[in-house]
Amino acid sequence: MYRSHTCGELRITDVNKNVTLSGWVQTSRNFGELLFIDIRDRYGLTQIVFNKTENIDLFTQANQLGREFVVQIKGKVVERSNKNPKNPTGEIEIIANDLNVLSASKLPPFTIENNTDGGDDIRMQYRYLDLRRGEVQEKIIFRHKVGHEVRNYLNANGFLDIETPFLIKSTPEGARDFVVPSRMNPGQFYALPQSPQTFKQLLMVSGFDKYYQITRCFRDEDLRADRQPEFTQIDCEMAFVEQEDILNMFEGLIKHIFKTIKNIDLPDFPRMQYDDAMRLYGSDKPDLRFGMQFNEMNDIVKGKDFKVFDDAELIIGINAENCANFTRKQLDELTDFVKRPQIGATGLIYLRYNEDGTLKSSVDKFYNEEELKKWAVSAKMKEGDLLLVLCGKAEKVRKQMNELRLELGNKLGLRKADEFKPLWVLDFPLLEYIEEDNRWFAMHHPFTSPKKEDIEFLYTDPARVRADAYDLAINGVEVGGGSIRIFDKQLQAKMFERLGFSDAEAQKQFGFLMNAFEYGAPPHGGLAFGFDRLCAVLNSIESIRDFIAFPKNNSGRDVMLDSPSTIDEKQLKELNINTTI
Amino acid sequence: MYRSHTCGELRITDVNKNVTLSGWVQTSRNFGELLFIDIRDRYGLTQIVFNKTENIDLFTQANQLGREFVVQIKGKVVERSNKNPKNPTGEIEIIANDLNVLSASKLPPFTIENNTDGGDDIRMQYRYLDLRRGEVQEKIIFRHKVGHEVRNYLNANGFLDIETPFLIKSTPEGARDFVVPSRMNPGQFYALPQSPQTFKQLLMVSGFDKYYQITRCFRDEDLRADRQPEFTQIDCEMAFVEQEDILNMFEGLIKHIFKTIKNIDLPDFPRMQYDDAMRLYGSDKPDLRFGMQFNEMNDIVKGKDFKVFDDAELIIGINAENCANFTRKQLDELTDFVKRPQIGATGLIYLRYNEDGTLKSSVDKFYNEEELKKWAVSAKMKEGDLLLVLCGKAEKVRKQMNELRLELGNKLGLRKADEFKPLWVLDFPLLEYIEEDNRWFAMHHPFTSPKKEDIEFLYTDPARVRADAYDLAINGVEVGGGSIRIFDKQLQAKMFERLGFSDAEAQKQFGFLMNAFEYGAPPHGGLAFGFDRLCAVLNSIESIRDFIAFPKNNSGRDVMLDSPSTIDEKQLKELNINTTI
Repeated sequence: MYRSHTCGELRITDVNKNVTLSGWVQTSRNFGELLFIDIRDRYGLTQIVFNKTENIDLFTQANQLGREFVVQIKGKVVERSNKNPKNPTGEIEIIANDLNVLSASKLPPFTIENNTDGGDDIRMQYRYLDLRRGEVQEKIIFRHKVGHEVRNYLNANGFLDIETPFLIKSTPEGARDFVVPSRMNPGQFYALPQSPQTFKQLLMVSGFDKYYQITRCFRDEDLRADRQPEFTQIDCEMAFVEQEDILNMFEGLIKHIFKTIKNIDLPDFPRMQYDDAMRLYGSDKPDLRFGMQFNEMNDIVKGKDFKVFDDAELIIGINAENCANFTRKQLDELTDFVKRPQIGATGLIYLRYNEDGTLKSSVDKFYNEEELKKWAVSAKMKEGDLLLVLCGKAEKVRKQMNELRLELGNKLGLRKADEFKPLWVLDFPLLEYIEEDNRWFAMHHPFTSPKKEDIEFLYTDPARVRADAYDLAINGVEVGGGSIRIFDKQLQAKMFERLGFSDAEAQKQFGFLMNAFEYGAPPHGGLAFGFDRLCAVLNSIESIRDFIAFPKNNSGRDVMLDSPSTIDEKQLKELNINTTI
Repeated sequence: MYRSHTCGELRITDVNKNVTLSGWVQTSRNFGELLFIDIRDRYGLTQIVFNKTENIDLFTQANQLGREFVVQIKGKVVERSNKNPKNPTGEIEIIANDLNVLSASKLPPFTIENNTDGGDDIRMQYRYLDLRRGEVQEKIIFRHKVGHEVRNYLNANGFLDIETPFLIKSTPEGARDFVVPSRMNPGQFYALPQSPQTFKQLLMVSGFDKYYQITRCFRDEDLRADRQPEFTQIDCEMAFVEQEDILNMFEGLIKHIFKTIKNIDLPDFPRMQYDDAMRLYGSDKPDLRFGMQFNEMNDIVKGKDFKVFDDAELIIGINAENCANFTRKQLDELTDFVKRPQIGATGLIYLRYNEDGTLKSSVDKFYNEEELKKWAVSAKMKEGDLLLVLCGKAEKVRKQMNELRLELGNKLGLRKADEFKPLWVLDFPLLEYIEEDNRWFAMHHPFTSPKKEDIEFLYTDPARVRADAYDLAINGVEVGGGSIRIFDKQLQAKMFERLGFSDAEAQKQFGFLMNAFEYGAPPHGGLAFGFDRLCAVLNSIESIRDFIAFPKNNSGRDVMLDSPSTIDEKQLKELNINTTI
């Protein structure tokens, strides 16, 4: 037996017990006569005392222990004279009478502490050491807890956890697939799933009616910061449901997670049409922790000989409350911010509603006090507020203003880490036109149902067709999304046609699903949450990487494994492939 | 709302309620004035009544419903005059007042019933329909329940569910890897994990101390019947443990599953040395539901001028109790069985201990009554028993006798479907010599710890070195196995050397693990259960396939998806690979 207790377990009530602990040496302090060693495991930290007078050999041995040595210690629990109220084991210490070095350690390449001296690269390379740091370990444990509660809720609600295959069929629609050459079927390839979408729909056709799976998905996309080639999805589907049933079920799930994990009772989630979200926030995932809704100003600013506005398709203002006292420098910073190439605005116009009631704008040349007053009224400004105005092409200016709004939210401390504002965004467009491909693509995926009343516009006005699709955003982050699915073969065929599939292509790629629809498919729909992302949002952390035990870097490499790597000629030959570089 | 109740929910206490049900048409019976339709979902079957006189339109509409149509029905619950006690809803029926066809169905290619008329191939192709059959659906739901209880037990015991990567590094040791070309790292490949072995060991080095994961594993092996290229493992690891801790923890898990899923209280599991298992049963996973232990007879049969025995390395007999009355035909069948090429014995010798006390063997020429009496005594035969004897090279004859024993167990009905006999098999050999490769291989894997006292024989007598490795067998099926791991870099290096790795190879493939061992690795060990296999064994079913929602056939193909398949030239080009056929 390596231990009788963990390093986080002993309390004042255990005094006088003989115990055995095992763990890693966190610190060692030699006071001449006494040597104190803190040993650590994932449960906590316990102080061990070695007394030179009482046992010189043991003292000498203990004095040679370095950081991260793995030791087993036997001893007696005693009350500490110098208690540490911050540590749950801080009322006791162990008088050691035996020490066994289980494993020595070289000096680690960085300190194993929350405030580590290790940079990103070295910590990725030695991920197994980084995972020893308390704050990283906590995130992995947090993820475990969330997964556990997700399962508790879904199991209690009658969902079945059903595994779907990883070696599936490549389909060019959507993101790029990772593929797997088949040795047994020369010249042919499996694909790794981008999501279990078609399988969960087949499970509905099979009658399983409530399905979930916490499963890995794969997308071979060019990696942006904080995107991983493999990521985990909480994937769910229900049959005999309408959108309302799904929203209620999964709003319940998110509430359950917040309650059980964070002890937060969330009120019912507000809902917003996609069109309204874009109009009021320039985003399909608005952060509702703060206001600054968009104020469209075309009616009141056009026709005053200010060419910039007159030429603009859309002029939007947002009211930064109590910011009239922004300095020139602060305004310049905001202007620089919106002019950054990633944002691309040409300039920023402002209107100060000073505390003394006067109005001062950057376009005083073109607008008199009375006109500016109209701006202030339309933006519901009060004395002390600052109006910030952008203009341009409607779609672009909305995006730019969204960025400015979020930047202001950050600067003003309005995006609080301990506040959570979920929002359902509903009625997404079914299709989006991609200029460079010169065709319409499914915004969600080709299996999403158009709204019945919009089907007639599939060809006459594709942009107008709304989908029975919904996203859940929390604090400006999309944590999940889904849709009601098409379950009628004719409508599915029509959808593929609209997306430019020939009948033969549709049949080749998705024939199994369309065939399935011919044998009694129930109405169904579902959604999927990004598990990594959900964990990050619950902690108000932007990066998902620390919630993944062994993440890859931005080139899709695992630097710890040094993977991907070349493989043997023999392997290539067996797989009937060559590399071309 | 598509339904107020499921098709398995309504009882006599619901009489007079107005309800809405949705489901699949299972059967339709027209009695002229009344039409009965059973509708089905995964919860059950409910009888719906349409009355011609009361609503001729509705009756006519209902009369056109075919099997597997998806319908929504509204009506009133009434008590049935002709109750069906076999069906939980059999006391009631629904008088329909509204019918809505949600989805029509073509005639299914086979009947959706337990006793289906569909062959294997057609059911694989239409797997989504096969999954509608009660007995298939039950298996998928059973699997869900087992998974749930595995998690309940492990979570309650402080294990953390931690996900490990799927895109990892190819290592030639072990089975063949599936590989994934990396587009972003041209000419390089990821591999899919054969198991999360090295990752779970790293997690122990990181201090997570109790880990589990129910995860997919991949092996590109030539498929035998009932082997799948992807399969699911319940993968577990613990730190600061000895073998005894692991056996107890996972014996507890299996007991928990039997108790919660099957309401069976299993007694403590017996344990057997690998050597004893081979000697007494010729198998490392003996089926303990019945006896017929091997009786080694060399001492009493050699030296009597029977050349077959004199030349044999090992002579084994098993006592088939009460089988002395086997007919000539039965004995011939057994002889044919052992002479099949898959088994390869040259013949079968028997000794009848007749009810009248006489002895009759097939080698009476060589052995007199007194000598045969010794056989009977050594095999603990009583009157009415039958001794069956095989001989040859020790290893081969043990395997042959194992097959014969199992065959007899089947024939005699001794392998009862409702009896469960778990067994820990301990102290497996560390190494096995593979003739065709002319070298020693790790029997379990290269990370398995040799027994301390046997390390000295690594080079002098490799076959003698036992491992701290253990398997759990239930009813003759290996459901799990594991080992205490090496956690010392020097010993791990020694092991790689013994397996024929150069230092450079070991470093290239497993450097990350050996490096990790230099920074304070705790003693650790673990095991993995085959989840598909465990589910099958719990149901006393041999095939794992029906416990997998979407299995592949013996060529690794998914015939429903028609996968694997060729991929676009564009995809190949992006991946920098060519096919060579």
